[in-house]
Amino acid sequence: MSTESGTESLTSAVLESFAETPNQRLKEILGSLTKHLHAFIAEVEPSIEEWEAGIDFLTATGQKCDSVRQEFILLSDVLGVSMLVETINDAETPDATDSTVLGPFHMVESPKRGLGENISPESEGDICVVRGRILSVTGQPIPRASIDVWQANMEGFYDVQQPGIQSIGNGRGLFTADDNGEFYFRSVVPSYYPIPTDGPVGDLLAATNRHPNRPAHIHFIVAAPGYKELTTHIFVGGSEYIESDAVFAVKESLIKPFTTNTDPDAAAAFGVNSPFVEGLIDIVLHPEIHAHTPTHETTKEIVR
Amino acid sequence: MSTESGTESLTSAVLESFAETPNQRLKEILGSLTKHLHAFIAEVEPSIEEWEAGIDFLTATGQKCDSVRQEFILLSDVLGVSMLVETINDAETPDATDSTVLGPFHMVESPKRGLGENISPESEGDICVVRGRILSVTGQPIPRASIDVWQANMEGFYDVQQPGIQSIGNGRGLFTADDNGEFYFRSVVPSYYPIPTDGPVGDLLAATNRHPNRPAHIHFIVAAPGYKELTTHIFVGGSEYIESDAVFAVKESLIKPFTTNTDPDAAAAFGVNSPFVEGLIDIVLHPEIHAHTPTHETTKEIVR
Repeated sequence: MSTESGTESLTSAVLESFAETPNQRLKEILGSLTKHLHAFIAEVEPSIEEWEAGIDFLTATGQKCDSVRQEFILLSDVLGVSMLVETINDAETPDATDSTVLGPFHMVESPKRGLGENISPESEGDICVVRGRILSVTGQPIPRASIDVWQANMEGFYDVQQPGIQSIGNGRGLFTADDNGEFYFRSVVPSYYPIPTDGPVGDLLAATNRHPNRPAHIHFIVAAPGYKELTTHIFVGGSEYIESDAVFAVKESLIKPFTTNTDPDAAAAFGVNSPFVEGLIDIVLHPEIHAHTPTHETTKEIVR
Repeated sequence: MSTESGTESLTSAVLESFAETPNQRLKEILGSLTKHLHAFIAEVEPSIEEWEAGIDFLTATGQKCDSVRQEFILLSDVLGVSMLVETINDAETPDATDSTVLGPFHMVESPKRGLGENISPESEGDICVVRGRILSVTGQPIPRASIDVWQANMEGFYDVQQPGIQSIGNGRGLFTADDNGEFYFRSVVPSYYPIPTDGPVGDLLAATNRHPNRPAHIHFIVAAPGYKELTTHIFVGGSEYIESDAVFAVKESLIKPFTTNTDPDAAAAFGVNSPFVEGLIDIVLHPEIHAHTPTHETTKEIVR
């Protein structure tokens, strides 16, 4: 038997082995995975040593994960897979605010905070106020949406990365917008920072001469009953690396200028010294979409 | 920007990010991986929940690995990837004995044993003698090749899977063929057995209604100076599951009858009672191939 027919019949045998999968969505995913994975292997023709290096890399990636580190999400991020999944899911809601990646640091619950509260009480840096409105695609305010935000400190670390230096919850806040859909909170102007490089993903970036940096941003998850939950960032306009985010997550529409507000009344209203830096973002949610949901949930159950 | 152009420009950006990779082989592999991985994602359009389920599955697979368990090799095996890599690498040496997968249980050094020694002194079952010759592709015996063999016991477990029940080294032996290329050792006739199912790969097989069994076999790694090392199995002819190996590793040429030898002189020569079961396999090695080796080793270094 020739190699070509040998590898093709092998791919067919693997596809055939999934024929009796009861969940049709799982069968579809595994069939597509098998075809594309085999096509990759057939294209690069790895040596046994290269295959072993791949097994070792994936194993080390899994073993780097713990309750505060998710190295597989980092790998998905630096290969552009996370952003691809986000872009595909975002395509259904073109009138809403663009989504971007979740990232690996949404690992602990954000502390509930009142509007105007400082999310970064333990962080040094330039005080800023972030504010805006939660709107529906028709432009109407959505009252009392839930707004989960998290960011790194000025050294580029999230709370979970600095036990003993930051308390869990520093840089995080869970807010409820007011009856007019408005929200506002204090923080420090975020800085660009490197993703963690002390693991297999860092080794991969080093081996490929890629920098590990993400431009300055604050994460948002916004949810309201009857609307599709939105996971996104606000990027600080003019930040270093805004053109070369290590995880490919920048969308033009999410870059916002962080400008100086010199109005002393505004400073007094937000409880900060004048002048202060202000970041403004209105977030538009799309009505909930129900298509496919039951099938996807079943798949998740079974694969887990 | 339309979704299609959005996902295509994302794939281009990821490919471009690898442009400065100094190792050209690593660049080639990552470029191919990016294209095929993105094509898979674009085809199945996973929901966020499905992407999370995939991340969780890969993480659990890495975390199931330890010094005696390699769940990523099992995953590679049940997706036919291990066998695909073997088949591609075997294609260069069509006149040699067929290779097959390494499997996840070559984790400890086999004890050095003298020709004729019993590799399974702690195992119950039908005594057998396995013997044959190590030959070059020209049919000449290769003297003093190294022959590493390992197998499960009659309950289907390797030594490393049964601490306290089997000593490490039971079911294993490292032999040196004699000056005529001949080898022979005693053991028990192996049984079919399930691959370990108490991890994510077992969950995957259960969710897809696939059985986890491998037909009865003994593993071999045969090495001699100047020849390409061979990793293979001898499969017991007529074993259950010979047509549906869970890891797709059966090649017709590797199935050998294990037949009853009634010659009392042969029994006496091998130190067993007459009659006894005999498995015969001549193993043909191909002269060493040097193409690409240095590049591949460099890739391995860097990725690790």
